[in-house]
Amino acid sequence: VISGIHHLGVATDDLAATVSRYRRLLGARVDHEAVVVDQGVRAVSLAMPEGPAVELLAPTGPDTPVGRFLERRGPGMHHVGYLTDDLLGELARLEGEGAELVDATPRSGLFGLQVAFLHPGTLHGVLTELVQPERGSVA
Amino acid sequence: VISGIHHLGVATDDLAATVSRYRRLLGARVDHEAVVVDQGVRAVSLAMPEGPAVELLAPTGPDTPVGRFLERRGPGMHHVGYLTDDLLGELARLEGEGAELVDATPRSGLFGLQVAFLHPGTLHGVLTELVQPERGSVA
Repeated sequence: VISGIHHLGVATDDLAATVSRYRRLLGARVDHEAVVVDQGVRAVSLAMPEGPAVELLAPTGPDTPVGRFLERRGPGMHHVGYLTDDLLGELARLEGEGAELVDATPRSGLFGLQVAFLHPGTLHGVLTELVQPERGSVA
Repeated sequence: VISGIHHLGVATDDLAATVSRYRRLLGARVDHEAVVVDQGVRAVSLAMPEGPAVELLAPTGPDTPVGRFLERRGPGMHHVGYLTDDLLGELARLEGEGAELVDATPRSGLFGLQVAFLHPGTLHGVLTELVQPERGSVA
């Protein structure tokens, strides 16, 4: 089952300034930070008092997925992550429904999550991620 | 206080197909529907089992805010709405913090919400809305 929105992913070319703005304007709190060198991304997960996180993503260089996104679209909303308790089962179901999977099998994502992306064409232009916390993860 | 994400706004040029896709792929449920002629928008609010809604927005014609968005950016994520219990107070605070307000005062939005938008430049490219349910509203 997919239970709901887990986080909103936002691409930025200035991570520190964006973190500062979300803290000051929206009252967000820095929850996790990570650098994933092989994915070319620096990330900060911001918690709100209730509900989903805002996951800020900055590229480590221009020739990275987030770097190319910024070049093409500019800063702004990048993807939405939905929480599931059965990532493998949901991927099989979605494939059977004709969804186009970017990740045919779960892979390790940010912040101790197992993740898989659906192609944006599958949900009318919205890059969509399914996430499941790894066993024993605090995320 | 801003408590968290209330909904994710998604622009589409095919409302029925997008509703169908979100129901079938993500298990979303149609919660509210509305047509707001003077804003040029047809909207469907989709509920997930938990947490924020997905608000699908389709233009009633090309020369509308959502129509122009689709022309410029294509279908996809349009805005994010945050819930507050004090919209007037938050707008005053945000203005004091240097936020650029699209709506200097609250106005009636979709689904019985009082709303006000912040300019996307204020949050690094993310069009951001604050919402507060009207007194007695079911939304």
